[in-house]
Amino acid sequence: MERIYADYLIETPYKVEKAAAVLAGEQSSGTFVAVPGETEELKKRFAARVENIELLELKDEPSIPGGSIPGKKYQQAHVRVSWSIENFGYNLPILISTLQGNLYEITQFTGLKLMNFDVPDSFANHFAGPRFGIKGSKASTQVEGRPMIGTILKPSVGMTPEETAAIVKVLVEAGIDFIKDDELMGSTANSLFDNRLKSIMKVIRDHQQKTSKKVMYACNISDEIDEMQRKYELIEQEEGSCAMISINSVGFSAAKKICDNGNLVIHGHRNGWGMLNRHPLLGIEFPAYQKIWRLAGIDQLHVNGIQNKFWESDDSVVKSIQSCLKPFVAGHELLPVVSSGQWGGQAFETYRRTQTTDLLYMAGGGILAHPMGAEAGVNAIQQAWKGAVDGLSLERTAQLYPEFAASVKKFSK
Amino acid sequence: MERIYADYLIETPYKVEKAAAVLAGEQSSGTFVAVPGETEELKKRFAARVENIELLELKDEPSIPGGSIPGKKYQQAHVRVSWSIENFGYNLPILISTLQGNLYEITQFTGLKLMNFDVPDSFANHFAGPRFGIKGSKASTQVEGRPMIGTILKPSVGMTPEETAAIVKVLVEAGIDFIKDDELMGSTANSLFDNRLKSIMKVIRDHQQKTSKKVMYACNISDEIDEMQRKYELIEQEEGSCAMISINSVGFSAAKKICDNGNLVIHGHRNGWGMLNRHPLLGIEFPAYQKIWRLAGIDQLHVNGIQNKFWESDDSVVKSIQSCLKPFVAGHELLPVVSSGQWGGQAFETYRRTQTTDLLYMAGGGILAHPMGAEAGVNAIQQAWKGAVDGLSLERTAQLYPEFAASVKKFSK
Repeated sequence: MERIYADYLIETPYKVEKAAAVLAGEQSSGTFVAVPGETEELKKRFAARVENIELLELKDEPSIPGGSIPGKKYQQAHVRVSWSIENFGYNLPILISTLQGNLYEITQFTGLKLMNFDVPDSFANHFAGPRFGIKGSKASTQVEGRPMIGTILKPSVGMTPEETAAIVKVLVEAGIDFIKDDELMGSTANSLFDNRLKSIMKVIRDHQQKTSKKVMYACNISDEIDEMQRKYELIEQEEGSCAMISINSVGFSAAKKICDNGNLVIHGHRNGWGMLNRHPLLGIEFPAYQKIWRLAGIDQLHVNGIQNKFWESDDSVVKSIQSCLKPFVAGHELLPVVSSGQWGGQAFETYRRTQTTDLLYMAGGGILAHPMGAEAGVNAIQQAWKGAVDGLSLERTAQLYPEFAASVKKFSK
Repeated sequence: MERIYADYLIETPYKVEKAAAVLAGEQSSGTFVAVPGETEELKKRFAARVENIELLELKDEPSIPGGSIPGKKYQQAHVRVSWSIENFGYNLPILISTLQGNLYEITQFTGLKLMNFDVPDSFANHFAGPRFGIKGSKASTQVEGRPMIGTILKPSVGMTPEETAAIVKVLVEAGIDFIKDDELMGSTANSLFDNRLKSIMKVIRDHQQKTSKKVMYACNISDEIDEMQRKYELIEQEEGSCAMISINSVGFSAAKKICDNGNLVIHGHRNGWGMLNRHPLLGIEFPAYQKIWRLAGIDQLHVNGIQNKFWESDDSVVKSIQSCLKPFVAGHELLPVVSSGQWGGQAFETYRRTQTTDLLYMAGGGILAHPMGAEAGVNAIQQAWKGAVDGLSLERTAQLYPEFAASVKKFSK
């Protein structure tokens, strides 16, 4: 029978074998005394199984509170656990409850992080995965041999639809591939969703008529289900190609429902991610997280960026990008959305470490605040990527291209 | 204009005023350079506002990694921030992204926890809240003057519908008020959802015919949206009164959609909660969390229990129970679901500290594993609660009631 495998980083003051057995028990039977009806045969068929244990460091202090024992040391370990697919079939919320669920509350652990999981190939028959992903996103915007270049409409709240559309006009004429709403932007008092969408899509359609290039607009439809569906259909009517959802805020089942419509590229914003990941011994790592959202059908997912303005290390960002690019059971590969304090200068390190241009490279202030104007801002980022792919240094690239040189002067710290 | 208020516990190596300003900035404009169009007038109307700062302890070490500065101390503080309702209207996913969102990733913080939030009364016009809550749950099961007594169907996976129904028969005849599926139980290879529901509801209907008492069965419908809707309707057809969803696994927008059907009591299971809460300086506290789910319309929500088998302190459990009992903008009060290692012995401390019987008191092995049988198991818990409400001690209660005395002998540590 096919099995699901999950890899955890754990920490425990107990023997790791014993703590791992508690983990497996909690996620199959989970009560504090034996009850009638739980036969050995049933246990064998449905119980979680500890597949492997690899001991890591021994710590003097517990990583998270609630399970410490005076005088004890805390053993960190990688633990691999498996379940028969008979336990949940292809029900993802139940799988999520099994992979995560109560585990984080178990006293025997002073640290627990879901690092990764594997599902059988048969999942491909039940989940379409990303309908567009890298391939569809780049084809839709006619981008080849370089990352898609995108920007975020700012300020996130306050501007009228007309003011926003005027900025969009500047951006599309500057040659941008992609624009998106801020995650805080839904429908505000002076910028109702429908009005903003219509104003922006008119600019995009006009530009497409002139140039044949259709800029992708990730319009933030995050909301309750029926309202998201209504907004999705309005985007279709307006000939838009993309919708954005804050995946943690709307949740798995709603995101899946939206993706299942299948006509728009779905841009997944991971805001709230920090609470699931910032502590090294609590929560979930990105390689596991992105698989859940690929099964939902998300096409593009935020991965932060090299030298970002947030807390995350470059190593972690690189690992996230790599996990999106790997094939997974169903659909296209996931397009990594590189953002947070990006302006072009990070293209060199990003390319050096990932060797890919299959990215959506988001620059916020880096474009509209470019001293030579927005078109120069877009060009500067394209130049940076050309330099990076050609194997040039940042300095050499700046010597070749005045727009990028101006970016370096303004944005490098 | 009405405002939303949020209370955070933060920790920072910077001046708290400066860090709080970064928080407010990230959640209204959020880019690293000034951009055209962001006027002072717009800022004033839509920017987040720091309302209050209360300094707490100064720490030598950062609570979470990613923002430490060598030689610095780390100031903890309570910070109150507000936003105009004009920023998001009544869109809860956007509100969630605003209250939490990117905040956890900001380098200026070495700790950030959302402690609570307040919404204006006008939310009551847009969110029905819990349709049943405490009042409806107790009325439906004809329980007065004591907590509802419930149990979890175990083992969670492995038994056939017929085997489970046989256990349910024992439980309903024993006088139980409420039974629920385990959160890991959806539709398994040998217990398909529809079959299990039908087998169990037949037992419950038969019992109702004999006794006029309708036991509430929280059937785990956690799944994708359409399948949850189908299961919800099947429960209605089978004359069930309740459905259970794992709220973190299905997410806000799907949970709201299910609650909006309005015909069944919705039992909210918070599995996964530990990753959002176990660290004292990361994530969200229960008083804030339960408000989000009341706005979704959840009627019953897990709060762990006194002397539980998990890591959580009794103080934290008491605070959670109290927050459910407080009135909130719309709907009935939320029924706190007390569970995890409960058997009746904890009734005394639970009542002493909360002074309420508006609880759903869940005992797992404590009922079916009672040495005198399941009926004695249910009676023992009712006796414990009678003793607690009458102001008796555990010891005195055990002297009065042989069933409870047998529980004490078997389950007390």
